[in-house]
Amino acid sequence: MNSTRTPSLAPAVTPADIAAAAERIVARVRVTPVMQVAAKDLDLPIDVTLKLELLQHVGSFKPRGAFNRVLAADAIPTAGLIAASGGNHGAAVAFVAQTLGIAAEVFVPSSSPAMKRERIASLGATVNVIEGLFDDAQAAAVARQLETGALAVHPFEHPDVVAGQGTMARELEAQMSATGFDTLLAATGGGGFIAGQAAWFAGRRRVVSIEPATSQCLHAARLAGEPVDVSVAGVAADSLGARRLGSVAWSIVAPYVAHSLTVDDDAIRAAQRLLWDRLRLVVEPGGATALAALHSGAYTAEPGERVVVVVCGANCDPATVTG
Amino acid sequence: MNSTRTPSLAPAVTPADIAAAAERIVARVRVTPVMQVAAKDLDLPIDVTLKLELLQHVGSFKPRGAFNRVLAADAIPTAGLIAASGGNHGAAVAFVAQTLGIAAEVFVPSSSPAMKRERIASLGATVNVIEGLFDDAQAAAVARQLETGALAVHPFEHPDVVAGQGTMARELEAQMSATGFDTLLAATGGGGFIAGQAAWFAGRRRVVSIEPATSQCLHAARLAGEPVDVSVAGVAADSLGARRLGSVAWSIVAPYVAHSLTVDDDAIRAAQRLLWDRLRLVVEPGGATALAALHSGAYTAEPGERVVVVVCGANCDPATVTG
Repeated sequence: MNSTRTPSLAPAVTPADIAAAAERIVARVRVTPVMQVAAKDLDLPIDVTLKLELLQHVGSFKPRGAFNRVLAADAIPTAGLIAASGGNHGAAVAFVAQTLGIAAEVFVPSSSPAMKRERIASLGATVNVIEGLFDDAQAAAVARQLETGALAVHPFEHPDVVAGQGTMARELEAQMSATGFDTLLAATGGGGFIAGQAAWFAGRRRVVSIEPATSQCLHAARLAGEPVDVSVAGVAADSLGARRLGSVAWSIVAPYVAHSLTVDDDAIRAAQRLLWDRLRLVVEPGGATALAALHSGAYTAEPGERVVVVVCGANCDPATVTG
Repeated sequence: MNSTRTPSLAPAVTPADIAAAAERIVARVRVTPVMQVAAKDLDLPIDVTLKLELLQHVGSFKPRGAFNRVLAADAIPTAGLIAASGGNHGAAVAFVAQTLGIAAEVFVPSSSPAMKRERIASLGATVNVIEGLFDDAQAAAVARQLETGALAVHPFEHPDVVAGQGTMARELEAQMSATGFDTLLAATGGGGFIAGQAAWFAGRRRVVSIEPATSQCLHAARLAGEPVDVSVAGVAADSLGARRLGSVAWSIVAPYVAHSLTVDDDAIRAAQRLLWDRLRLVVEPGGATALAALHSGAYTAEPGERVVVVVCGANCDPATVTG
């Protein structure tokens, strides 16, 4: 690492911020279940605990951050909410708006699956499809926000969003209080989710970031000593395809995420298939990415290490998983 | 009720039997998660707790009973296990046999979905398809058992099977110890599952049986004061389509199941659709039948009643749910 390029940042989100977020959103989000699974059940080297965050509202963890961002805002403009999203965050913003009875406008890249766009529209938000990837949609959302004055709900580049995502770690720790655990494996897109988890644990537990080899902005940031642009492609690009790690996330990842790995698309597809075959769970590629690290051998647990794997998203065409 | 036709039977399964079963199978079955769901999330009149028993091995509660039956047997014949099944029990018997390294032969009615037959075969069991419904397959299995001497594992007509199913109630009570609950809604086929739950609670909690209007052997038994033959049809017939309530089940249902309801096929399909739309769970018709009672209004909860709904089976062609 080149320390001259890594200014010592204070983490943008603290455990106290996450506790406050949890209090703010407690009536709005689900406590998602955890389940112990034996090694042989998923062809893994070790027994694991799955955190089934795909059972959160609208099929991913995203409502945690979106609710916290909106409920922590000083005021909601008449124009409501605006966001860009590969799909899951957009559905969360639409769900938040529907729940609170306000308007929402969501910019989605053309590369995202049709079912994600349809889900956002079915929740009552206005959907704008933008040619390209997430960053193209984000640029369009920023331009539009200047016109409308809506509250921008970025999928990861805001402390309130990251603090909201971190409520999952707090919830998990309470659920696992009897048995404890050592390590959390989580998939990374723009870094908001992993940063939230790492901010809660603040070094008390090992947090491991898993990215597709085709979209690895966190791994690249750790190698470069700062967020850098990466290329974005692959089966999980619609949920994990961020061009650059967020700066909010980096302020937390730099001190607290000491392990980052990548997995290839075949490993992600195999993990999806496994979750369907053995647990009858429909999981999107990004949602199966953390498990793929354990299943493919990319992550090697130490003897006796107690590992929790986050299964974080359900939104895909089931025919792509079950067919 | 005609009491002259209801001899006073001692329940064939006691809480002590279920505690012994739990000890016997603890290393073989999963603890399945529970999840609190708000009323509005599933368009219900009340908040509920879902017991996600569809996350059990091979997608239903059936391995609990099958493991207990086999592990409690004095000896396993060289011919292994034999069973008839609409599909879920057959998969459980095949899974038990695979786990224990013994043979299994399963008789499946032609009315059951191809995916269930394929699942049984994929677990290494010999599958015989019999023209007709469950009882036709059962007759064929009985005849074959006389030839081979294999251990017959009936889906519901054995105390060890019922005691195994009852381990779910024991597990649930431990999971809910902090909050408690009043009522369990569960779907009924031949009665083994509901009897297991009722045997554990032994009147301490309200156990409500839900059946398809098209296959209602428990409801008919309560009306007649004894098990009677009923017709079998409808969308859930492959998992709930028993012609007559088991006598083991009746010895428990008669004293301990004071509420039985039926729901029509449209209500079952609507509950399946809801579980997919709102929770992204692929649930077979029989697995959604208990929820259908609450969603359709067939079951009316009292003010403040704390209800647990068992979601008990996942095995169906996902295209029938998600399409």
